Amino acid sequence: MKLHGQAARTIWLNADGWSVGVIDQTRLPHELVKVTLTSMADAAHAIKSMQVRGAPLIGATAAYGLALALRDDASDTALADAIAHLAEQRPTAVNLRWALEDVRQVVQPLAQEARAAAAYSRALMICDEDAEMCRRIGLHGLELIRAISARKSGAPVNILTHCNAGWLACVDWGTATSPIYHAHDAGIAVHVFVDETRPRNQGASLTAFELLQHGVPHTLIVDNAGGHLMQTGEVDLVIVGTDRVTACGDVANKIGTYLKALAAHDNGVPFYVAMPHTTIDWSIDNGADIPIEERSGDEVLRMQGRSADGSIAAFDIAAPGTRARNPGFDVTPARLVTGFITERGVCRATRDGLLSLYPERREAAA
Amino acid sequence: MKLHGQAARTIWLNADGWSVGVIDQTRLPHELVKVTLTSMADAAHAIKSMQVRGAPLIGATAAYGLALALRDDASDTALADAIAHLAEQRPTAVNLRWALEDVRQVVQPLAQEARAAAAYSRALMICDEDAEMCRRIGLHGLELIRAISARKSGAPVNILTHCNAGWLACVDWGTATSPIYHAHDAGIAVHVFVDETRPRNQGASLTAFELLQHGVPHTLIVDNAGGHLMQTGEVDLVIVGTDRVTACGDVANKIGTYLKALAAHDNGVPFYVAMPHTTIDWSIDNGADIPIEERSGDEVLRMQGRSADGSIAAFDIAAPGTRARNPGFDVTPARLVTGFITERGVCRATRDGLLSLYPERREAAA
Repeated sequence: MKLHGQAARTIWLNADGWSVGVIDQTRLPHELVKVTLTSMADAAHAIKSMQVRGAPLIGATAAYGLALALRDDASDTALADAIAHLAEQRPTAVNLRWALEDVRQVVQPLAQEARAAAAYSRALMICDEDAEMCRRIGLHGLELIRAISARKSGAPVNILTHCNAGWLACVDWGTATSPIYHAHDAGIAVHVFVDETRPRNQGASLTAFELLQHGVPHTLIVDNAGGHLMQTGEVDLVIVGTDRVTACGDVANKIGTYLKALAAHDNGVPFYVAMPHTTIDWSIDNGADIPIEERSGDEVLRMQGRSADGSIAAFDIAAPGTRARNPGFDVTPARLVTGFITERGVCRATRDGLLSLYPERREAAA
Repeated sequence: MKLHGQAARTIWLNADGWSVGVIDQTRLPHELVKVTLTSMADAAHAIKSMQVRGAPLIGATAAYGLALALRDDASDTALADAIAHLAEQRPTAVNLRWALEDVRQVVQPLAQEARAAAAYSRALMICDEDAEMCRRIGLHGLELIRAISARKSGAPVNILTHCNAGWLACVDWGTATSPIYHAHDAGIAVHVFVDETRPRNQGASLTAFELLQHGVPHTLIVDNAGGHLMQTGEVDLVIVGTDRVTACGDVANKIGTYLKALAAHDNGVPFYVAMPHTTIDWSIDNGADIPIEERSGDEVLRMQGRSADGSIAAFDIAAPGTRARNPGFDVTPARLVTGFITERGVCRATRDGLLSLYPERREAAA
């Protein structure tokens, strides 16, 4: 997607052929700061400090971090140490561990002098595969938007999204945003209502920033506003991402998603969830069995913003002594989901719907 | 209710017998600053700058503002000028105009030397009447909470509320909060989930502050979290206030109320709306006919908080150039409302329900 008018990815190899570039997403939307990773320690810091976030991007950063480590020392011991160190930066990030294991399997059998180059090559492949999966999600979602656009005789299609399932969380395109970027690039008039997404404000900080950079018309709204906009007919379509989908189609996603799904259902607005197949957890049927992370109440009580002098600082919004609860995710039952958009196509939010796209899982899901 | 452990109202006559005290609510929750109004200009400023807010409190402040004006000059001209000046401070506040007209009708027939004292007396009566109406709402709502408490064998009753329909918006007790204060004061264990209520954060700034001051257990949550907490059985009851109720029971209230009503309905959680009869608009049946105020997008883009050095400052949360929409209210259809709590009792959210409490309106509503 575009940054300052130039095509960009969220992670890239620099012109020197070995150092790795990423965007410091903790400074967004206030400053666009690029960071150069020259060591495994840099990569670990980028992951831990959330300069990079989003499962696919964390995985890609870890893969490049391993390549940087092997460039310094490609011994078996160094490989094992690097994997252990990188993995512990975000203990619950499944994708991080998956990416490290993926690179390990490629480099372990090789001679030490071949390992670093192979790791770089594998890291790039991880990036390319993620971008391609997101691109395909976009192509399938594009057809949904195209159909609504035709029904509206080309008037802008109003799409509401929650949190950031955008390219900043991935390598390129994003998941929920990929259909939107594809539609915009194809000349279809779209307009995005961006949920602020308290408490971490990913909508205001990341999604609105992304859309602004790529030139997609959009409007920031508070999380409270989406229901009213659906009641007044101002939303044609909802597309969100997800952290985990059960085999029956229940959807865990950023806290507040369930409220938007209820409103969409109550107003006959199509509610789609975009994700790659890797997000489907075939081992769970009922969304109520998905553990919901309770995060620190400080995220509710304290916000980051840009002061009048341009500096970025944290602010307290409640009285000292106020306690806060902060569940990070909620579960939207499949009955409220119109369908899924995956890299293989669009399906209904049922076991049969998912299996129609992934027939090879029929046995596992039985 | 209590402030620093002392019983307090939001507006009071000072010990000098003529100047009027209010709380500067723009400084909450960061500082408790009391302001002394010694002239009509002070009262007008308090209303305009939103040092006082909430329909009942604005009305009471205007009434005292008129008393202060008449203390300086009780001529017919001064009376008319003061009413005109006070009324224009918040053009859409119906209660402000109602209170001014109420005082005018009392003082106009009197000799000039009797007018100021009569205005003070009438202003106090307006305050007392509001406090009494809120007290009665609380007594009726208390019985709902008592019943849930009994069913839970005395375990804390978890009540979710949105925005601030608290005593800070009124003179005492509040509307939605009055049942909660009554239950707490009666020794019933209650715990309140306070919706932050973006974009103006009245939950964090006012409701949490109120509850903290009065010693009622509570937890601040982002507006996104309530649905999840209802899904997991952590909410026993929702009570909100309202800006306008139609004759058929549709409810206009702070943006986001509709989303909580949907979630309550989806999870079988009782959803009550507390209001005095003055909030019922018998001239409208359908909530869709209630005009919804579009407020400035700046309220979404800019927040107020307490910096690390303790100072209160505004800060921007989105990238420069980001546009925002800011509908101030939404309409919750009567089908999602379990019932109303008014000063006369509890009724179903239907025309017949409302008429059962206000039979004298049967003709008007026919």
